[in-house]
Amino acid sequence: MEGDPTLRLRVFNLNCWAIRYLSKRRQERVRLIGDTLRRERFDLVLLQEVWSERDYSDLKAKLGGCYPFSHYFRSGVIGSGLCVFSRFPILDTLLYQYSLNGYPYMLQHGDWFCGKSVGLVLAWGFTISLPPGSCQLHAEYCREKDAYLPHRLVQAWELAQFIRHTSKAADVVLLGGDLNMHPEDVGIRLLRGWTGLRDAFAEAARFEGCEDGCTLIPNNCFTVKSELLPFPLGIRIDYILYKAISSFTVKCEELKTTTGTAPGTDIPFSDHEAVMATLQIQRQGQAAGANLGTAEPTLADVVTEARTEVGVGLRAAQRQRYSTGRMAVLALLLLLLQAVAALGALAGLAAGQPFPKLSFSLLAFLAIGVLLLATGLHLFHTMEVKMLQGTEEQMRMALRALRERP
Amino acid sequence: MEGDPTLRLRVFNLNCWAIRYLSKRRQERVRLIGDTLRRERFDLVLLQEVWSERDYSDLKAKLGGCYPFSHYFRSGVIGSGLCVFSRFPILDTLLYQYSLNGYPYMLQHGDWFCGKSVGLVLAWGFTISLPPGSCQLHAEYCREKDAYLPHRLVQAWELAQFIRHTSKAADVVLLGGDLNMHPEDVGIRLLRGWTGLRDAFAEAARFEGCEDGCTLIPNNCFTVKSELLPFPLGIRIDYILYKAISSFTVKCEELKTTTGTAPGTDIPFSDHEAVMATLQIQRQGQAAGANLGTAEPTLADVVTEARTEVGVGLRAAQRQRYSTGRMAVLALLLLLLQAVAALGALAGLAAGQPFPKLSFSLLAFLAIGVLLLATGLHLFHTMEVKMLQGTEEQMRMALRALRERP
Repeated sequence: MEGDPTLRLRVFNLNCWAIRYLSKRRQERVRLIGDTLRRERFDLVLLQEVWSERDYSDLKAKLGGCYPFSHYFRSGVIGSGLCVFSRFPILDTLLYQYSLNGYPYMLQHGDWFCGKSVGLVLAWGFTISLPPGSCQLHAEYCREKDAYLPHRLVQAWELAQFIRHTSKAADVVLLGGDLNMHPEDVGIRLLRGWTGLRDAFAEAARFEGCEDGCTLIPNNCFTVKSELLPFPLGIRIDYILYKAISSFTVKCEELKTTTGTAPGTDIPFSDHEAVMATLQIQRQGQAAGANLGTAEPTLADVVTEARTEVGVGLRAAQRQRYSTGRMAVLALLLLLLQAVAALGALAGLAAGQPFPKLSFSLLAFLAIGVLLLATGLHLFHTMEVKMLQGTEEQMRMALRALRERP
Repeated sequence: MEGDPTLRLRVFNLNCWAIRYLSKRRQERVRLIGDTLRRERFDLVLLQEVWSERDYSDLKAKLGGCYPFSHYFRSGVIGSGLCVFSRFPILDTLLYQYSLNGYPYMLQHGDWFCGKSVGLVLAWGFTISLPPGSCQLHAEYCREKDAYLPHRLVQAWELAQFIRHTSKAADVVLLGGDLNMHPEDVGIRLLRGWTGLRDAFAEAARFEGCEDGCTLIPNNCFTVKSELLPFPLGIRIDYILYKAISSFTVKCEELKTTTGTAPGTDIPFSDHEAVMATLQIQRQGQAAGANLGTAEPTLADVVTEARTEVGVGLRAAQRQRYSTGRMAVLALLLLLLQAVAALGALAGLAAGQPFPKLSFSLLAFLAIGVLLLATGLHLFHTMEVKMLQGTEEQMRMALRALRERP
């Protein structure tokens, strides 16, 4: 980032909701997104939930002229759904897998099968971190009784740690994506506090768009209205965050969101609103140094709060590990009992046949099924316990470091 | 790392082979390792395959006096087995999960259930990366027909990328561990070339220990002699690698390995030999800059070679994805056929009962079992394909960057 003392960077961020066969009017919307991006000529485009590689290829073919550099992150069964288009050369990429991402047996939520990772793009002095789509961080399905909160906090923590460790030599760090957290949630406060990232919405000199910067609004014809009932204005869960690390400063000149429909049309880009930021990046005399965003006593409180929630998740995971282990043992005992009975019958200890063959073998199959399932779940929850313990330990270390700092 | 112009750093690295119930004379050996470490007072101790947290706690209690800082990395079902003891404060840690790590159904190899990750420790200006234990990088079970080579290459690549991205602001980077690769293997050449890390054995001014620096030798009473038949001297798979990033230089003054038994006893520490390096770290006038270790045309050749191997793995994974998918479809068809037959029988289309109930339901259970298994494997191989494609793409990008560099 040499030469020009001031760089104006226009960033576009959108959760595209482009799931093949499931998302409404997908092809039409992807075409619309491509047309708009070609017309508007942003500098950086961060897209999430582009689940089909075909859609990515179509976009790439359409946008090749004005965004010569692009990258699609592959991961998980379905993919990460994440891609980036850039006017600047993409020098390198890195994918970081979160250690926890929901439960494989919650098929209806599907998070476990998605990305599980954050993508990193290095482009010309920027480090751009992209948590992929609404699938990441883990989606919130029920705000009152949020069973995934500990997983989401582990992810927020890992995302923050990943950004801290990978951005040390960057000039500017950008994070764009659907974080599935409201601005005041502990995960967002943790992420912002621990990385020093600033929220473009809060910092913008000019703002234009939905009230409170909401990105999931009742006015959008694709949103599920019942989920937004407690929030008449909608919610803000898509963010552009940034900070300058070395001898640069970043300011947000302008932030815009779409407001339920794409400009000049009657359908929206997606069920989420697009977030568009104009950042002003300036070289300054001396290095600013990596500073944490919030005052440190507050940061310690946030880390403590997050650690408490992770602890709650840990105890729940320990209980589940125990109960699945017990179920596996019971199924094994039943199988052993059946084996003894069958051997007894074979050895002629019982006169005639004590059990009807059909129900006997059905029972055996059932026991095998339960044994396999319970063992699998037990292994899964064992991993979950380990990762939650690991995160709690890291947070403890962070708290110690915060307290010991002069 | 301010003040003293020259720092002498003594590093100890050992794959401890401490698997509960399975490793021979485990407790005796862990005690011996602890006693030696307490006596020798190294600066940094990197241990792998400490699978039991109890063993870690025992070591921590014993070593607390001379190594006041330590960390145990938790991950996977069994754990990462990795821990570090340090004279310097450990400021921060980060765990990076590899995207591929063998196959869950290869129970006899067990790699899938282990760590799957590399640990990062920040201690006082050092960045220390630790690929955990012989479980990581993925173990080599058959050198002639090495089905895991693509997975190991993906891991070597991810490890290299992880080190590149996290070490940019470090003074000195250290990597210690059992890499499960011979010094001339493509994975090691890739790792060294792409990160610029230097091999302490090759650079050491003085060396003392097993011939060729081997760390798995026939003289050790715990090694499996038949596996070492093609290598009469043994093999070298445990490494200490290093580089200086900013205004420092690192030299390896001395490298030692144990030679089949622990010093002063008749049993070895482990089935691996310990590697002990004395490094001399010096501040120099101006920043050296991150330089790549090998000449770049050679590096391009290495990346090309690795990419070819990853491509071979990709095609194998695609074949397996196809065949497991086909098996799932066949099982589904069989189930549907059975359902039609059963409905037909219920509707009285067939006179009497066409099938014996028992074998009919056994067949149905079998079909369900095959369907579930094949679907699971299909999903797994789909993920494998995606990750191999992602790595191939990253390597392609790296090759382009290497070629375009002036």
